[in-house]
Formats: sequence, C-alpha cells, structure tokens
Amino acid sequence: MDQHITNSSKFPKVVIVGGGFGGIELAKRLKNKEVEILMLDRHNYHTFQPLLYQVATGGLEADSIAFPLRKIFKNQKNFTFRVTEVDSIDPSAKIVNTSIGKITYDYLVLATGSDTNFFGQKEVEHFSMAMKTIPEALNLRSMILQNLEEALIEGDPVRKASLLNFVVVGGGPTGVELSGALAELKKHILPEDYPELSVKDVNVYLIEGSDELLGAMSDEASAKSKQFLQEMGVKVLTNIRVLGYDGDVIKLSNEQAIPTKNVLWSAGVKGAIPGGFPPETIARGNRIVVDEFNRVAAQPRIFAIGDVAAQITPDTPNGLPGVAPVAIQQGKHLAKNILRFMNNEQPEPFKYSNQGSMATVGRNKAVVDIGKIRFQGIFAWFVWMFVHLMSLVGFRNKVVTFVNWVWSYFSYDRGTRLIIRRFNRESMTEDPSAK
Amino acid sequence: MDQHITNSSKFPKVVIVGGGFGGIELAKRLKNKEVEILMLDRHNYHTFQPLLYQVATGGLEADSIAFPLRKIFKNQKNFTFRVTEVDSIDPSAKIVNTSIGKITYDYLVLATGSDTNFFGQKEVEHFSMAMKTIPEALNLRSMILQNLEEALIEGDPVRKASLLNFVVVGGGPTGVELSGALAELKKHILPEDYPELSVKDVNVYLIEGSDELLGAMSDEASAKSKQFLQEMGVKVLTNIRVLGYDGDVIKLSNEQAIPTKNVLWSAGVKGAIPGGFPPETIARGNRIVVDEFNRVAAQPRIFAIGDVAAQITPDTPNGLPGVAPVAIQQGKHLAKNILRFMNNEQPEPFKYSNQGSMATVGRNKAVVDIGKIRFQGIFAWFVWMFVHLMSLVGFRNKVVTFVNWVWSYFSYDRGTRLIIRRFNRESMTEDPSAK
Repeated sequence: MDQHITNSSKFPKVVIVGGGFGGIELAKRLKNKEVEILMLDRHNYHTFQPLLYQVATGGLEADSIAFPLRKIFKNQKNFTFRVTEVDSIDPSAKIVNTSIGKITYDYLVLATGSDTNFFGQKEVEHFSMAMKTIPEALNLRSMILQNLEEALIEGDPVRKASLLNFVVVGGGPTGVELSGALAELKKHILPEDYPELSVKDVNVYLIEGSDELLGAMSDEASAKSKQFLQEMGVKVLTNIRVLGYDGDVIKLSNEQAIPTKNVLWSAGVKGAIPGGFPPETIARGNRIVVDEFNRVAAQPRIFAIGDVAAQITPDTPNGLPGVAPVAIQQGKHLAKNILRFMNNEQPEPFKYSNQGSMATVGRNKAVVDIGKIRFQGIFAWFVWMFVHLMSLVGFRNKVVTFVNWVWSYFSYDRGTRLIIRRFNRESMTEDPSAK
Repeated sequence: MDQHITNSSKFPKVVIVGGGFGGIELAKRLKNKEVEILMLDRHNYHTFQPLLYQVATGGLEADSIAFPLRKIFKNQKNFTFRVTEVDSIDPSAKIVNTSIGKITYDYLVLATGSDTNFFGQKEVEHFSMAMKTIPEALNLRSMILQNLEEALIEGDPVRKASLLNFVVVGGGPTGVELSGALAELKKHILPEDYPELSVKDVNVYLIEGSDELLGAMSDEASAKSKQFLQEMGVKVLTNIRVLGYDGDVIKLSNEQAIPTKNVLWSAGVKGAIPGGFPPETIARGNRIVVDEFNRVAAQPRIFAIGDVAAQITPDTPNGLPGVAPVAIQQGKHLAKNILRFMNNEQPEPFKYSNQGSMATVGRNKAVVDIGKIRFQGIFAWFVWMFVHLMSLVGFRNKVVTFVNWVWSYFSYDRGTRLIIRRFNRESMTEDPSAK
C-alpha cells in the first residue's frame, strides 16, 4: 500500500486533492512547515477558470490560462505531486483510492472544485456543451468554428439557422461573459472571416431562469449587464427555463423553440465529490458540509475548501459563494488551522472577507461591485482586466495574455480561432482520429 | 455538382489544395487578378512547421505557430476558403472529390505538402510518433510528459528505463532540433519538475542512417551539429538503421536494442497526393513529377508546388529539396505563369534561388550555410531566431513567440509543459474521453 509515494519524512502527511485556487494556496502556505504535502490532480496544470470563456471564443490560447503545477512548487521541498484521478476515500483506513493505487494520509483536504450541473436533464447534458475545463473550452471553440464552416455549405434553411443560432443557458458571470464574447465574435470577426454569411442570420441568446442576470451581484450590476448585452445584440430572455434539448431544437418554458446546434450550458455547478462520503455530509448542490474550521462532520482529519465545501454556519446558512476568493481565503486559513490541529491548539473559525465581485460583458463594458461602491462601463472593464491579469499564475502567462488583450483592443481581433482538434457531433467530444 | 461553392464570377476558377507556404504565396500573388481562387485545406489554419518541435517540447503554445487561413485573406475579394479533405481528382471531368462534395476547377494547384514516411515499416509506424501537424506535436508533448509522470511511480527498472529513454530517428533538421530540445528539457526542466527522478537515468538518442547529420547542409554544419548535440549529452548514432520497434524495444542495425516508450520518427517524408494520379506521374518519395512550369505531365491545367512536387529537369534530376523557400518561390512564380497560361502567353521556367539553410541545436547553438558562408554557434542561433520569427505569419504570433523566447532565454524555462489532452498508448493518439 502507498507504494507509489516515497515518504521517508517523519512529519504528518497532508494529502490535498485538487490544484485549483484553494489547493494551491494551502500548499504554498505550508511551505517550510513540519508537514509532508502530497497534491493530487487529474491535470498536471492549474486552470484559471475565470478566463475559460476567452479560450472558447478564440481570444486567448489555452496555454495562457494554464500553469504547470510542478512549476509552482519547484522550490518547495516538502511538496510532492501526482497526476491521478481520485475514485473514493476510505476514512476508516485513512486511504485515498486513486487510479495509481492506494494513498495513505494523516490529513486529507478536498479542494476538488465543482462540475457542471445539468440538474438531472440527461438529454440536455448529452447535447449541450459545458465549460469547466480547458479541454471543454477547446471543444467548444472547435464546435463554434466548425458550425460556422458548415453553415457556409448548408443548403437547408432550417439546418443553416440551427448552425448559426447560439444559445447560452444561465445568466451568471460565465453566461454573461460567454454571450458577450459571442456577440463580439459576430460583430467583428464574422464579417471579415465569413463574408458569405449574413451577420443578421447569426443570433446569440442568453436564457436565465430567474428575473435578472448576475443574481449574486447588485441590482445595478444586474440591470446594466442586461442593458450592455442587449446593446450588443444579445437576445436576453429572463424568467425562462429550458424544458429540453434534443440536439436540434431547444424548447423553452415560454413555448419558444429555437433550432440550434450550439447550446452552451452555464446554468449551474455541483461539488465534485469522490466516493466514500456518507450522504448526510452532502448538502444542496452536492457540496460537502464543513464546520467553521472547514472540517467535515465527524471526520477530524478530513477538510474541504472552495467550491466543493458548503460551510454551513449561523452566519452562512447556505454556504459561501463558489468563487475563487473564498477558496483562496479558506486555503490560507486552513494552513494555519491544520498546524494548530497537529499541535493540539485551538483552531480559529474562518471568516470570509468579501472583496467584491465583477463580470465583463465586452469591450469597454464590465460591472463591478465593491461593497457599497458600484460602477459599470469602461473603468469597470479596465479594473476587471487588471484584476484578472494580476490573478493569472505565472509571469509568462501574464505577459502573453496582456499582449493578446492589447492586440485585440486595437485590432478588434480574436487571434486564435483555430480548429486544432475537430469536434465530433456524434460523441460530443473531439475526434482523436483527426490529424 | 459544385453546389457548395457559389461562383458567380466570369473569371477562371483556380482551386488550390493546401494552405501551406506554397499555397498561401500563390493565392496572395493572385490578389486583384482576373481569377477566382478557391483554397481547400483540412485545417482552418496555416501551420508553421519549422517550429513544431518547440510545441512538442513545451517551448511554444500551439496557437503561436498556427494562423487562421481566413484571416490571411480577409481583404482579398477573389478568395474563397473551405475546410475539407480532398479524396481524389478527376482530370477528365476537371473535378476534385472532397468530403464536402464535388468541386469543379479550371486550373488546379496541388500544394498538399508531405506526410511522414515510414518506408513501409507498419509496426514502427503504429508505435512511433510523427510530427508533421499541430495535433501530432501536441500528442507528442502529452506523451513525453505522461511518460515522465509514469516513470515516477514505476517500480520495474526495465519499464522505468523504457519511459526515460527518448529515441529520435532521423538526423535531418527536425531530428537535430527535436533531440536538442529534449536534451535541454532534461538539463533544465527535469531537475526542477521531477526532483524524484535522476537526470542520469534519462537518455536522448539520435539515430541516423547515413554517416552524417544534416546531410543536405555543408560538412561544417554536419560536423558541428553533431558536436553540439554530443556536448549536450545526446547519444548520436550514425550509420545505424532501425530494424524494428514493437512499442517496447527499438532494434538497431548495430545489434543494439534500446527499451523505450518514446520513439520520435523524423526519418523521412513522402508527398501527400490525393487519389486519381496515374502511377507514371509519381516519382520517388511519392512526389508528383512536374516540368519547369510546375505543370503535371500531360495535364495542362494541373500544377503542383512545394513538397508534393518533384521538379525533374536537367538541372535538378532529383527534384528540389522539400523546404519552405522552394514552396514559396514556386507559389510566387506559378502565380505569374498561371496568368500567362490563361492569356496564351509563353510561361517562364522556374529557377530556384537557394538562399541558404539553417538548423538550431539548442541555446546559443545553431548552424547556418549561406552559399559559401558558413557559421555556427551563438551568432548563427540569433540569425536562426530572427529568420524564424520574421517568417511566422501574423504580428500577434511574432510577439507571443518573441516573448516566449526572451522569457526562456533568461529563465531557462519552457513554459507550456501541459498535458491538455491525455495521450492514450493503446490508440497512439489522444484520449477524447479525458476532460
């Protein structure tokens, strides 16, 4: 058992599952401490998820928003990393079952983030595209571009319309950003790249179940983001639910039926939990219930942070929002508490410091809430770009992204509209046989 | 027939198959001329093949060496583009059979380039990796990184050795550049990223059948590139042929057998010819025989340029080398000749102007031949970088590549060592199910 990881250290072994914002912050904060860290992730890189929509729409190369996990920790002697899938945990034996074998732990931290939630709609799940990982964003990019290519040679008007209708489901930040980016693609790229297509045949829809976009933000942000999108030509439909999607037509609760081959699903997330957790520890949205120390109920050596954790306290009866700052702050805080637990000291409860939230709609158009301060438009857009650029891991990534953004700003261009791997509509994934 | 392409023009229709160096040059030179151009390519982008080895070894993002074909021609009114595979041609009906239907032509230009040549060794072909396209280079990158990850957890010493032995076959520019890049990966990245592995367990071999590397270049270049590689720790084996490779052990003509999971094949190319050509028009290396006007024998309306063409003339009994400058010069020249043919004017024979050749081995190490002028080392390396940077299509690509190179130079880093799509050893391609 545990044959794959040499751990000659006498220090307690902290296994961190997931190299997202929370897992990275935690591991960094444990540098030079008397612990042995093992991080597990199915990818060998960290994904900067807030910019996935730019990869999907040809604005950034995938490699700009990914960063090799080994490189982040190259000088950290108490850090080991393995690429693996975690299948389940066995708390009684203090073991994680993975694709590379059983791994023991003294302390286990789940920082596995979230997956797309289709709320049980299997057919919708099969035919629509999610965007939580880089391969998914690249599949989406290929699909969008291939559908434009196919529209050129499609004689049947209904099929052609379905190739040119883009339906984004879910009016949170991802849906707003994605539909805005598609509107810009339509306005600036389509007339140049596809002069044979008519811009007015291309439609971008944004479907939201509640009565406003960006529900987690201020009313000003909600209203302004809707106005921005409408000015950009996006058809924003609020108070509308998706009843079904069979790969050809999406049916909406207002009896509208839109022929489309492009359904982009950003309507919800659910915690990505490995097997082995008792059902009573799992809350709404498939998140693991944790206490104010991010400890899993009745499991003194198991913790969860970030999107996968539901920190249910009197102050936060519904848990905290699934955003990067929560994960980062929890990772930072847990580093101290884990050391306190090891030394039998009193841990300190986590307090979330909400530093605001923001979303971008398009060129010169973003919305920012910082406490009572709310602003929208070009200044908000520059703030958004600055914050995201600074949050990107790695100097090279910052520079390459900055170059791309400056280039796009002046040229109205999106440079990377490449079909590197063909998307296969049967399997709804890329075609490995394509050279 | 020809239903997919609206061609209301009264001008003759020139169909160009392939958006490589030759095809692009030809189409550009026909701008504003009295012809209708239709370009066909299986990708929607141009690939800058000379830098594929940097993508395969994590030095550059794929998107830096690819450029959307539509974008190159966005202001060219007589240009149309389709993504499609060309199956065969039918000269008697003047038709190209493609995956999107039959397409008619008045003049047809094959600029389809070359594929990897395994010289009939089927088993070697299945188990070794080629590198002629961006998907192939990305597969190679994933395979190299996954094999390093796997070596970490491999207990069996022979299997571990096979994961850490890298065998590059073919000592032309690609083989020299690839083995040099692998040697740098071993020296600068491995100790930082994989402190658990021992650098001395990692071996890079370069196998060449003739008695020297870079056979097409000067003796100085051949000797110096070998010396550079040996200084960098590459085991260069000349006068050695590959007898077989079964996925585990590569067998060489000197009776050596190297256990390896990493065989990178760059030992030869062959023309990529669609079906429909009579065997007598096909020369050695599967290239189409053309005359001094790049005209296919007995086919007054079919031309071939670049790697796929064998221009057999008294001056060039073996054809011209399969390099970018030949393709570019032939494209440029053919643009004029096609117009002459249309106007029943006398065409002019093509003359290749050899402006020299170069190859890079590693940091501060390149070899350059320009006529009688030959130099090697750091200045050659800067010349190599400058020429390749300037040849890249697109300002954005130039800037991003420049940033990456400057960054690598000072940091000794290769930034994009990402396993974006997992490589599957069974299918020898990437795994579409991996998220």
